Amino acid sequence: MPGFKVPEITIQRLSIYLRALKKFTDEGILSSQGLARLVGTTAAQVRKDLAYFGEFGIPGQGYNIGKLKQEIRHILAVDKEWRLALVGAGKLGTALLAYPGFKREEFKIIAVFDNDPKKIGKKVEGITIEPVEKITDILLEYEVKIGILTTPADVAQSVVDKMIEGGVRGILNFAPVHLKIPEKIKLKNVDLSMELEALSYFLAKEAKHRKAKGRT
Amino acid sequence: MPGFKVPEITIQRLSIYLRALKKFTDEGILSSQGLARLVGTTAAQVRKDLAYFGEFGIPGQGYNIGKLKQEIRHILAVDKEWRLALVGAGKLGTALLAYPGFKREEFKIIAVFDNDPKKIGKKVEGITIEPVEKITDILLEYEVKIGILTTPADVAQSVVDKMIEGGVRGILNFAPVHLKIPEKIKLKNVDLSMELEALSYFLAKEAKHRKAKGRT
Repeated sequence: MPGFKVPEITIQRLSIYLRALKKFTDEGILSSQGLARLVGTTAAQVRKDLAYFGEFGIPGQGYNIGKLKQEIRHILAVDKEWRLALVGAGKLGTALLAYPGFKREEFKIIAVFDNDPKKIGKKVEGITIEPVEKITDILLEYEVKIGILTTPADVAQSVVDKMIEGGVRGILNFAPVHLKIPEKIKLKNVDLSMELEALSYFLAKEAKHRKAKGRT
Repeated sequence: MPGFKVPEITIQRLSIYLRALKKFTDEGILSSQGLARLVGTTAAQVRKDLAYFGEFGIPGQGYNIGKLKQEIRHILAVDKEWRLALVGAGKLGTALLAYPGFKREEFKIIAVFDNDPKKIGKKVEGITIEPVEKITDILLEYEVKIGILTTPADVAQSVVDKMIEGGVRGILNFAPVHLKIPEKIKLKNVDLSMELEALSYFLAKEAKHRKAKGRT
């Protein structure tokens, strides 16, 4: 199966597998059933997801844990260091800078930008806030390839244009806006309210079931 | 197809369809091709997603926009008001309280809790911060059904136990921890660093393609 187009949901599951595997030391073997149980999926799903990238298992036994971690890290390209820049040092931006999941060796936020003169020159999480006019130059100089966008909607597009001019190839967008970007740039829109809608769907469905069964 | 188990990814796409539809007035007709183009999927996918819930289209024409909005709102249960509570008034919690996507009529955050005596009694986004000891009582009193968890990992489980005692049925968890919850409670874990891993995967893959093609 290697070479087939890999669905995004498979990549998401690889991240989940890696998180589960991190709880184990590198020695030892884990079966696909074992890994599946840890993350709440099926053994067939685990094998299918991994099969996109080659053969990692020991037939009839399972996966060497250390090797599997290393392979997934390599697939996700988190075995190297990425330099990131964040634009929009407001509440969400500042919270993300302090977010443990964003303080990882693989993902180094090395520059922060804002257009508020009162913020420029101040430090947030040890990084000096620079004016948005400098985005392109600083990103080019430090070879930043990933941009995080936490600006208000009305300035988002102009910031993204500057990021792309600065050589950014991937953008994680928290601004509630539809961005126009060249096809070669990868855009991930994060809309946290969609998570709430998924919850309300399940709660309403469950309430209906309870009602039908006459339970409270 | 109604009655079949609906995949979570379909629910996610319904949220995306609803966002795209909101840009249109209620009058008029939109084809499944038209809707698919707006969100970057196929007409077959749109039809399949909606078919889980019944027949909404006008054969050979498409969907009545106003009616489709209303139907999706009903499916996602965002045609009613949900009361929410947030626990953990730190950086991320405060940012989420100010987050536009969380300031919606359907999702009303009516209570905020923290265990820091310096924060208790202060207001954040107009809501007075209450001590964590009061979680169960206040949630029961105001019939809060959804909880948002933005505490550090070490207190997350005890807070969740209090939430569930208070009648919460759905939890949006930002704490980097594996929570033990009863099966009837719906848990959505949000790990923003997984979005970064999806980006790094695609950037590394694209870089390899470019290299193979001899382009820079």
